[in-house]
Amino acid sequence: MGTAEIPYKIYLDESELPTSWYNMRADMKKKPAPLLNPGTGQPMKAEELEAVFCSELVKQELNNDDAHIAIPQEILDFYKMYRPSPLVRAYFLEKKLDTPAKIYYKFEGNNTSGSHKLNSAIAQAYYAKKQGLKGVTTETGAGQWGTALSMACAFFGLDCKVFMVKVSYEQKPFRREVMRTYGASVTPSPSETTQIGKKILSEHPGTTGSLGCAISEAVDVAVGTEGYRYVLGSVLNQVLLHQSVIGLETKAALDKYGIRPDIIIGCAGGGSNLGGLIAPFMGEKLRGEADYRIIAVEPSSCPSFTRGKYAYDFCDTGRVCPLAKMYTLGCDYIPAPNHAGGLRYHGMSSTLSELYDQGYMEATSVKQTDVFAAAEEFARVEGILPAPESSHAIRVAINEALKCKETGEEKTIVFGLTGTGYFDMVAYEKFHDGQMEDYLPTDEELAKSLDKLPQIG
Amino acid sequence: MGTAEIPYKIYLDESELPTSWYNMRADMKKKPAPLLNPGTGQPMKAEELEAVFCSELVKQELNNDDAHIAIPQEILDFYKMYRPSPLVRAYFLEKKLDTPAKIYYKFEGNNTSGSHKLNSAIAQAYYAKKQGLKGVTTETGAGQWGTALSMACAFFGLDCKVFMVKVSYEQKPFRREVMRTYGASVTPSPSETTQIGKKILSEHPGTTGSLGCAISEAVDVAVGTEGYRYVLGSVLNQVLLHQSVIGLETKAALDKYGIRPDIIIGCAGGGSNLGGLIAPFMGEKLRGEADYRIIAVEPSSCPSFTRGKYAYDFCDTGRVCPLAKMYTLGCDYIPAPNHAGGLRYHGMSSTLSELYDQGYMEATSVKQTDVFAAAEEFARVEGILPAPESSHAIRVAINEALKCKETGEEKTIVFGLTGTGYFDMVAYEKFHDGQMEDYLPTDEELAKSLDKLPQIG
Repeated sequence: MGTAEIPYKIYLDESELPTSWYNMRADMKKKPAPLLNPGTGQPMKAEELEAVFCSELVKQELNNDDAHIAIPQEILDFYKMYRPSPLVRAYFLEKKLDTPAKIYYKFEGNNTSGSHKLNSAIAQAYYAKKQGLKGVTTETGAGQWGTALSMACAFFGLDCKVFMVKVSYEQKPFRREVMRTYGASVTPSPSETTQIGKKILSEHPGTTGSLGCAISEAVDVAVGTEGYRYVLGSVLNQVLLHQSVIGLETKAALDKYGIRPDIIIGCAGGGSNLGGLIAPFMGEKLRGEADYRIIAVEPSSCPSFTRGKYAYDFCDTGRVCPLAKMYTLGCDYIPAPNHAGGLRYHGMSSTLSELYDQGYMEATSVKQTDVFAAAEEFARVEGILPAPESSHAIRVAINEALKCKETGEEKTIVFGLTGTGYFDMVAYEKFHDGQMEDYLPTDEELAKSLDKLPQIG
Repeated sequence: MGTAEIPYKIYLDESELPTSWYNMRADMKKKPAPLLNPGTGQPMKAEELEAVFCSELVKQELNNDDAHIAIPQEILDFYKMYRPSPLVRAYFLEKKLDTPAKIYYKFEGNNTSGSHKLNSAIAQAYYAKKQGLKGVTTETGAGQWGTALSMACAFFGLDCKVFMVKVSYEQKPFRREVMRTYGASVTPSPSETTQIGKKILSEHPGTTGSLGCAISEAVDVAVGTEGYRYVLGSVLNQVLLHQSVIGLETKAALDKYGIRPDIIIGCAGGGSNLGGLIAPFMGEKLRGEADYRIIAVEPSSCPSFTRGKYAYDFCDTGRVCPLAKMYTLGCDYIPAPNHAGGLRYHGMSSTLSELYDQGYMEATSVKQTDVFAAAEEFARVEGILPAPESSHAIRVAINEALKCKETGEEKTIVFGLTGTGYFDMVAYEKFHDGQMEDYLPTDEELAKSLDKLPQIG
């Protein structure tokens, strides 16, 4: 391996970094369905969205036409602090699996937020600052998005109010402290500090929360506070746009060495990482220039692609947000306390949902004990302790590599290693102690929330 | 800043990575004093040391002659998983401080051990494996060395028994879990599992432990268990040798852009990071080829350079280890529970002690509240959440940069950012809540342990 032509880690030079984000929607013949106003059933207008979101971000949200959107210089400079992220050739994992497959992973965990979330956080904070806002509100599941946004807000001197899903708040006691280091305030959700939080608590006593609940609270506060807007770390088109930097770097690094992937794998909660990783590859696919197998991996406890419905639904549990057409389990669905907090969302990005519906990608779901087994196997040979979310992609990458071992095929597999698991040691401890359970919702459970989908579209 | 000639991060290509370690002792006219057998007062022979340490590592420990020692291919391959580490230009910190100084830091935290410790851990595990051993024992303070060794042992399939300083074990509950992920066993020290641990507990009831105590226990177990040896993450010559990879990369990166540092700053506990970072620069100084200001930074609660004595002392509290000539606070000195667990050691590397004694470097001590203030300031502009240990170097780098602001001098400052603080959130929480105290030992306290130094040499 010492003489391998492909280095262990491919780093792009600063001069090779992307200077524009890539917008998949521009190349989609059938565009993702628009957000709807739940009152009128009509597509949300820019001015309606601007009550909740920053103006420039609304433009990006609604922009289905421009394939390339220039990254402002201030964001490029911030990116240079922690980007490019390495594209790693998993030589040691290949050896361990004894597979002819060639495995690469794009590692987004080498920054203090511990994940790819910083890519969009810095962009959203930048536009909020440029608009002259005082601060922003948001929700966080695993805490990675909240940390990323705290870092971005500290950098631009913005106030940052984070609603953290209660189960994650309790599982990850130190996450809050990292956010405080960056000057943010953190409230476990559902909370008694908002009307919508109180309502959810009265309807679901003892609930451990969900991203859907936390979104409702964060939006509630943003709309009711002068000089504040709400920002979101996944699901939205704008987030996938910012995250395209992951895929653009990945593609540039592969192209540099003439490598063509056969399979691209990413974990999928709301779709921010997956949508970013696959963006330029999907672009080629949409334009008919190349073909790739693209696999979304979701937890079996929250299987929106694999067991959900493609329908209009609320983005949040409190039903205060616009309606999005997406694969959904129903906005009332509160996932079991799976340890991959970042994947505990009832819906899926509208863009990815439309691409999945059109057959441009596959989806599969995996059980969390299988995910942690893959995480540990990976950590021991590749060094990096992966986040539970990222480990969903590891599980399927290993499965595909083992299939290659059976068939003898030398496929090239690329997966997204979105982040690190340093704040997930409670989960790892349960796994080591044999106390981790798998949660698979019954059809009846799913039907219960799916039956309550709004009747639209 | 977007057009700066020097990139934000300088990464070497794989082909530019060092293939040999550099041994400072070869260029020292007056060599570091040898380890002594406490029974005979004579220099330790290789065969005596081999009862405790791996044979190849003993050779490295005693090698004062060879300036360059080739890095075995297996270690080079492992290094490629997480090296080169970036040399970062702190553009945003410079801007925040409004200083004409140019600040660079070598960031060693981008691996799961969270620090530079992996550089020596993988080397020591490799030699242990090559010797056909079953496993190794060690101590860990902050937990970074223990994690690094666990990772290295998992990679080579060796058993790993870690004694973790009790105060760190309690401050960092999740560190143990990371080590378990890599298959290690972790015991808080002092423990009831060893004779020496029982003795220390009876003499110092309720002690929160120290590196000195944990070393005694780990050595005790290694010597008493078939197929095991003891390995150490700092202080020893062999460790500084392995860590020279930090300095060699730093120098190669600076040379690539024609940058000549004026000041080089590193935190100093046992000396592993500092000795590694400065190695090639010190080499030039020793050979009279160049001059640099080199500053060691230690906690005011454990000030071996600045308030200790240069004398022969035991490396461990239990007095089972050989004697080393070093700046020491006395092997009975148990430092206050400062949050920089990695710097809570009574002594200092013999090599660095000799260089300090000969005037080749300076030393200073800083209070932990000042250290955390610097850590937070750094985190907010440079993104990275630093380890408390590393933040000692940040504090002094900021101080020096502020002096440049006063004088208008455009000095180039390089410091070692040894690791990340993800497992130090208890400490950050205390700092945020205003509950962090500074511990400065009185002269009487220091005299108490210094009076008990062995009468040798």
